[in-house]
Amino acid sequence: MDPTTFETHPSRYHHWKLAVAGDVATLTMAVDGDHPHKPGYELKLNSYDLSVDIELADAIQRLRFEHPEVRACVVTADLDRVFCSGANIYMLGLSSHSFKVNFCKFTNETRLYLEDASANSGLKFLAACKGTTAGGGYELALACDDIVLVDDGNSAVSFPETPLLAVLPGTGGLTRLVDKRKVRRDRADVFCTVAEGIKGKRAKDWGLVDGLVARSKWDAEVAARAAKLAAASAGVAKGPAVQLDALAPVIGKDSFAYRHVTMTIDRAARTAAFVIAAPTAPPPADSATAGADLWSLRAFRELDDALLRLRFDYPEIAVVTLRTKGDRAQVLAHDAALAKDASGFAREVRLLQRRVLKRLDNTARSLYAVADAADSCFAGVLLETALAADRFYMLIDGAGEIAVATSVANAGANPTATGLTRLEARFYGEPAQVAKVLGRGADGPISSEDAEVLGLATVALDDIDFADELRIAIEERVSLSPDALTGMEASLRFVGPETVETKIFGRLSAWQNWIFTRANSTGERGALTLYGRPERPVFQLNRT
Amino acid sequence: MDPTTFETHPSRYHHWKLAVAGDVATLTMAVDGDHPHKPGYELKLNSYDLSVDIELADAIQRLRFEHPEVRACVVTADLDRVFCSGANIYMLGLSSHSFKVNFCKFTNETRLYLEDASANSGLKFLAACKGTTAGGGYELALACDDIVLVDDGNSAVSFPETPLLAVLPGTGGLTRLVDKRKVRRDRADVFCTVAEGIKGKRAKDWGLVDGLVARSKWDAEVAARAAKLAAASAGVAKGPAVQLDALAPVIGKDSFAYRHVTMTIDRAARTAAFVIAAPTAPPPADSATAGADLWSLRAFRELDDALLRLRFDYPEIAVVTLRTKGDRAQVLAHDAALAKDASGFAREVRLLQRRVLKRLDNTARSLYAVADAADSCFAGVLLETALAADRFYMLIDGAGEIAVATSVANAGANPTATGLTRLEARFYGEPAQVAKVLGRGADGPISSEDAEVLGLATVALDDIDFADELRIAIEERVSLSPDALTGMEASLRFVGPETVETKIFGRLSAWQNWIFTRANSTGERGALTLYGRPERPVFQLNRT
Repeated sequence: MDPTTFETHPSRYHHWKLAVAGDVATLTMAVDGDHPHKPGYELKLNSYDLSVDIELADAIQRLRFEHPEVRACVVTADLDRVFCSGANIYMLGLSSHSFKVNFCKFTNETRLYLEDASANSGLKFLAACKGTTAGGGYELALACDDIVLVDDGNSAVSFPETPLLAVLPGTGGLTRLVDKRKVRRDRADVFCTVAEGIKGKRAKDWGLVDGLVARSKWDAEVAARAAKLAAASAGVAKGPAVQLDALAPVIGKDSFAYRHVTMTIDRAARTAAFVIAAPTAPPPADSATAGADLWSLRAFRELDDALLRLRFDYPEIAVVTLRTKGDRAQVLAHDAALAKDASGFAREVRLLQRRVLKRLDNTARSLYAVADAADSCFAGVLLETALAADRFYMLIDGAGEIAVATSVANAGANPTATGLTRLEARFYGEPAQVAKVLGRGADGPISSEDAEVLGLATVALDDIDFADELRIAIEERVSLSPDALTGMEASLRFVGPETVETKIFGRLSAWQNWIFTRANSTGERGALTLYGRPERPVFQLNRT
Repeated sequence: MDPTTFETHPSRYHHWKLAVAGDVATLTMAVDGDHPHKPGYELKLNSYDLSVDIELADAIQRLRFEHPEVRACVVTADLDRVFCSGANIYMLGLSSHSFKVNFCKFTNETRLYLEDASANSGLKFLAACKGTTAGGGYELALACDDIVLVDDGNSAVSFPETPLLAVLPGTGGLTRLVDKRKVRRDRADVFCTVAEGIKGKRAKDWGLVDGLVARSKWDAEVAARAAKLAAASAGVAKGPAVQLDALAPVIGKDSFAYRHVTMTIDRAARTAAFVIAAPTAPPPADSATAGADLWSLRAFRELDDALLRLRFDYPEIAVVTLRTKGDRAQVLAHDAALAKDASGFAREVRLLQRRVLKRLDNTARSLYAVADAADSCFAGVLLETALAADRFYMLIDGAGEIAVATSVANAGANPTATGLTRLEARFYGEPAQVAKVLGRGADGPISSEDAEVLGLATVALDDIDFADELRIAIEERVSLSPDALTGMEASLRFVGPETVETKIFGRLSAWQNWIFTRANSTGERGALTLYGRPERPVFQLNRT
């Protein structure tokens, strides 16, 4: 199988058109039915699959880095009576359980990136729904700041998933309805069971959309609302623009070598080895002068790309080992330079690091961070990867060269989905310990022995025992049920408060995963299986 | 099939011994292997099934009402080397998916009731684990305030679910480890994958237990710790004692008639009709003089019992209609009298109402509240049942006799699992609307028309349309996939903040439900299926 490619460029989009005019961009969904992610189905009526969403994610990323002048983005469609009809049902019907789950996770991350850009980057989104807005189409709208629906007596917003397909809206829709838009929950209940959806005044009254606009006034009103959104974020620093070059990893047989990151797959052992290299030179005084070559940007774009390849193309990999190598002082220097750079570009790099670290948190593989060489450099933002891991194994060397180090990246710059930093999650309910670790880190590197005492290392051993202990831990982990591990890690990793974001990944996604495995949706006579066919689904009736 | 009986009495316990001495009770687990809930498995080594948990729930309830002098309860076992080995694996292997899910839900509720008693009733729990404390046994300990483990070089606490059975600890264990006890999450990860568990000093150092006690000092130390717990809750009002009589419903063919509550099952329509009757006389000045006959207590004990029967014995029922009948002024009078009674007994009644309402929230059936008769009385604490429902249908009568009314029971006395009241959840993010409703309610009953305008009724119609609208809504709901409805309702009902409690029901339980359906646990070659047999499980390897 060819590897999935998550990199693209507007010049190669099949499904979207990106246009920028002044401080407003327009992102027009124009799904090309003949270019699905995989053969076997046609993408009709602006329904989407992974290929459509990869382009959407790319477009949002490029708006942030390459078009910083943009302060509002209109998300719309090129069809006359349809905005977007959601995820393609035939694609879902043909997909494996693990693909469906990973597809939903990726689309959820992309929706959250819209909200992240709105909250943190002065980039607001207007969903301009000039026609049917169904399922995932409405969920895309819900991730925007402002939703306008055409008032033509016909066009509705809808969640037909439960009544027609026996599944849930899987891209955060249920959570965003009640938690974000605060639609009354009894009305949300009605809305989610009416396949044809709700249109016109009722959609507005119930808070499902923000505005209703007649066809005759559409363009003017959309432009006015976009201008208003753009003006609302006028205070946010922007730019300078930086073009994102291609990552262009060297792809071997089960290996991916990027400039700073390598991922090596061992199919027999069911492990993936990640190695992240530290920068080899000091940071520039002004981050933007390095452009896309800035280590803080490029290394994390690479890690992100590798994680996506792992998720989609290597579903049988059970354990990921994370190692770092290089000069920890350089990592700390880059963290410090990035933190004090007040430019919009530097902020975008910091936010990208944050998103990539969350992608790591949300990767359903067992993550073991390993510091077992003198040039290990879990420092600052790289220490975050060790804190994201389920366990952290550190070798105790005689000279104390193997060590971790802290930076501003560990002290609030990288909150997780719960709102806690990874140190706060590690020492949940013990703020004094967080302060102690950061205080100790300010004095210099923390050796493996000290890191264990401080609670940063899960296991620290000398070289008599280390290799065997790690080998056995990996072998044991690989032997366990993949499903139980996913549920266990999802419960232990997200200690602390829940948010809309964690509700989407923890509550809604967990229910959706369950529903996807049930006969009522995906069995031979399930509703998802039979969609578009004349037979009626037959349900197992027990409520559980 | 004989109906499941959730009522019992210490004189009839098979599996527990309840002893009270002064302000300390001792609840000793002594599972009688020959009295399982259903034939087909033996309850060895203090493993438990539903019958064991029904007795535990009864014992805690009776301690609160019948033994208010008790301020600490020691939970222990009568075996020399085993505290409790968790839920019986063979029982799980023999059980249907829906039974397993409902069993876990019931045991979770019971564990939360221990914590509720500790937080609100001045009744603290000590888990005295004089031997192996595994799986659900350790989860029971985690629900206690203080955990002591015998220090005999052998006895461990453990979660063997993931490594041995390919499932999760399903009674809140993962959540309580990291969120309640704040065990470091990387250590929790190690603990949850080591089948034999962790004992001695390491168990204490990691925060898995609070104390280690040698066998020779066991009795004295347990008594001392219990006395300390009892002393810690000395300030809480207690009593007077009230004996809980048998509910003794009249059981017909698919009907259950209690004194105040009736539940009528229509198997063909897949509906259950609940009717709750208002009190017919004013409340006593002192609640305790009515004893167990107090309407506020008895009606809610009856509702609780009916809900449990519905969950376990009628899995195919899709829609529950909730109606009330009687004098709404009496409901309000009883709410008012209960609220101003400062006795420990009155507090226990209020807490019981709160728990029963949460049981309603957590019942995985579609709930439609219906006010369609002049004597409908969704007032105060009964209005909470309408606010718990997914929808509330109100008939508009010419005279405006059909109405709802508010009381102190709607204004903070009955927080849901999220911590929000049901009015706050209904008007999430709109505190002004909550205040407006309560203000309007203070002026007298709110007619159906006004209730719709205020956002209390989902649908209010006059008698030309009402009956058809309701009938169609029920028929449509019954036609939908039971699984998708469970996931949808679980997402819409629990709007707002998440807590340990909602994490247990929303995150952990959803993952567990998924895992229970996967081949790796319950397939022919799954680990749960093969437990105790010589074959090794064979896993589907995809991580999702």
